[in-house]
Amino acid sequence: MTRNVYRIGIIGYGTVGKGIVNVLEEQKERIASLVSREIEVEYVLVKDRLKKREGDLSFVYDWDAFKRSSFDVVFECIVGVEPAVSYATYFLEQGIPVITANKEMFAKKGKALREVASEYGTSIRYEATTGGAIPIIRSINELLHIQTFTRIDGIVNGTTNYLVTTLRKEGGDFFEHVKKAQEKGYAEADPSFDIDGWDALFKLRIMCESVFGKSPDKETRIPLGPFVQQVKPKEGERIRYIASAYFEEDVLHAVIAPKVILPEHPLFGVDGVTNAIALTTTYSDVLTFTGPGAGSYPTASAMVDDWISYVKLVKPVVPASAGR
Amino acid sequence: MTRNVYRIGIIGYGTVGKGIVNVLEEQKERIASLVSREIEVEYVLVKDRLKKREGDLSFVYDWDAFKRSSFDVVFECIVGVEPAVSYATYFLEQGIPVITANKEMFAKKGKALREVASEYGTSIRYEATTGGAIPIIRSINELLHIQTFTRIDGIVNGTTNYLVTTLRKEGGDFFEHVKKAQEKGYAEADPSFDIDGWDALFKLRIMCESVFGKSPDKETRIPLGPFVQQVKPKEGERIRYIASAYFEEDVLHAVIAPKVILPEHPLFGVDGVTNAIALTTTYSDVLTFTGPGAGSYPTASAMVDDWISYVKLVKPVVPASAGR
Repeated sequence: MTRNVYRIGIIGYGTVGKGIVNVLEEQKERIASLVSREIEVEYVLVKDRLKKREGDLSFVYDWDAFKRSSFDVVFECIVGVEPAVSYATYFLEQGIPVITANKEMFAKKGKALREVASEYGTSIRYEATTGGAIPIIRSINELLHIQTFTRIDGIVNGTTNYLVTTLRKEGGDFFEHVKKAQEKGYAEADPSFDIDGWDALFKLRIMCESVFGKSPDKETRIPLGPFVQQVKPKEGERIRYIASAYFEEDVLHAVIAPKVILPEHPLFGVDGVTNAIALTTTYSDVLTFTGPGAGSYPTASAMVDDWISYVKLVKPVVPASAGR
Repeated sequence: MTRNVYRIGIIGYGTVGKGIVNVLEEQKERIASLVSREIEVEYVLVKDRLKKREGDLSFVYDWDAFKRSSFDVVFECIVGVEPAVSYATYFLEQGIPVITANKEMFAKKGKALREVASEYGTSIRYEATTGGAIPIIRSINELLHIQTFTRIDGIVNGTTNYLVTTLRKEGGDFFEHVKKAQEKGYAEADPSFDIDGWDALFKLRIMCESVFGKSPDKETRIPLGPFVQQVKPKEGERIRYIASAYFEEDVLHAVIAPKVILPEHPLFGVDGVTNAIALTTTYSDVLTFTGPGAGSYPTASAMVDDWISYVKLVKPVVPASAGR
């Protein structure tokens, strides 16, 4: 008997989880037509029983209850390594594809999760971990088959790019701007994840796996704060906090560092919370992808698109005869 | 009996055709592994019997001889509508996929060719017609499934972007720069195809079909020359020759026009022969793709990648069990 509905599980109902629910609801018919089945959000796993939640979603508070449900795909929308990695592993071992936006988890456990997925004939998809709405991972994995990449340079942390942009336009003290960004909700209570380069490093590690097929051999991470307090760019120059990866001899370097760049640099014009990733290629010089680095809808739409790409890849809609 | 070789036909041996031969030769093993078969260039169709050609390629001078060969894919690398469209139609009617870089042909005959391809269970792929090495068509068709696009703004003609960049940096008379560009081989003997916006309009038409699923209802094309002779941008402003498409009421407008833009515009920083395409989306604000707009290797690698994407789409390599 053919099952006529894709049953969807969602882990977490923060900014991203809500975005997923909204995108799935708003695009229900379009998605059904793309994946050739109806879709339905079965359960959303949340922690806090007491928080008031609206709408007619079925919330589950208990992992054991959630995991007993029968899903066709699970969207993992929480942060941190645990329990996310255990949850993801559980579903992959059931052969259920997992779509994640969890960069810290994927940077640390991505390789193992991909091995589990492969072993159980399914997939973990992670487009939304890196570059926000920019389809960078899928461009590398699904579009640019014959390019060899020789370097990556990216602005992959929106918070710090917002900070260097504000500092350039308004002047003033860097840490005062950090404080204001915290008040506006642009920066976390503990800003070190962003301004000391951890977030960018996690994303760069994930890109290194996709671009070079390996983890960095040597990681260097220079915090942004001290640099911008000491270095004053000249007229026409700009400071950017850049994530770069490249080979020197056979050593793959991953470097998160503030840099003073000139207008010719492909990341010169990327202001505010925007992300951009420039890939240096053998055949096509530099290809640069620019877009919003975060946000509920951008992240959620990247995840839903990632899932649809997966479904179409394993169930192509073109006639088999076209394969010749 | 399984055929173990992809037999490749190439129409034309100019800049792009040579690029295809080089890319296929340099990436022979990698491509074989990606498409799960050996590859072999069977024949290259060329016009001029007298031109000296090196290497061990099998050149054919006669269409009737070329078309009798048995190909698995044909790369169409000539310019102009005829005979390209007749050649493409012929192979599509045999169920053979055609990969084209011919923007004029595809802008004028793309719809009919796609219908023929669909009828005969094959595909015409046209990534390289637009945006050079930028995987814009495949990003739209294969990655961004649930985005709705509300507008396109692109720099899609490298020659005119080189001209406005040179004019800004060096000053002087526009048509003097056109003459110099012709001497350097950057501009054609008849430059109107570029500077009057025809080339950009063809590419914009092709993007409209992919992005909005229809041809423009109204086309406006303002030549670059008179504008740059009359309009002098202020300090901090830049002239760009921009291809835009958007709806007004239900009318799809396609406009090729010189514009004075500010640093906030996503195309502000795109200098020289580089192309860039900014897509305004419902969920992810503006996504911008930047890369080289032309050249032998960029165009050829876009075409070969386009073909590989097609092969992988109709013959997915992931295990069927992963489909669930």
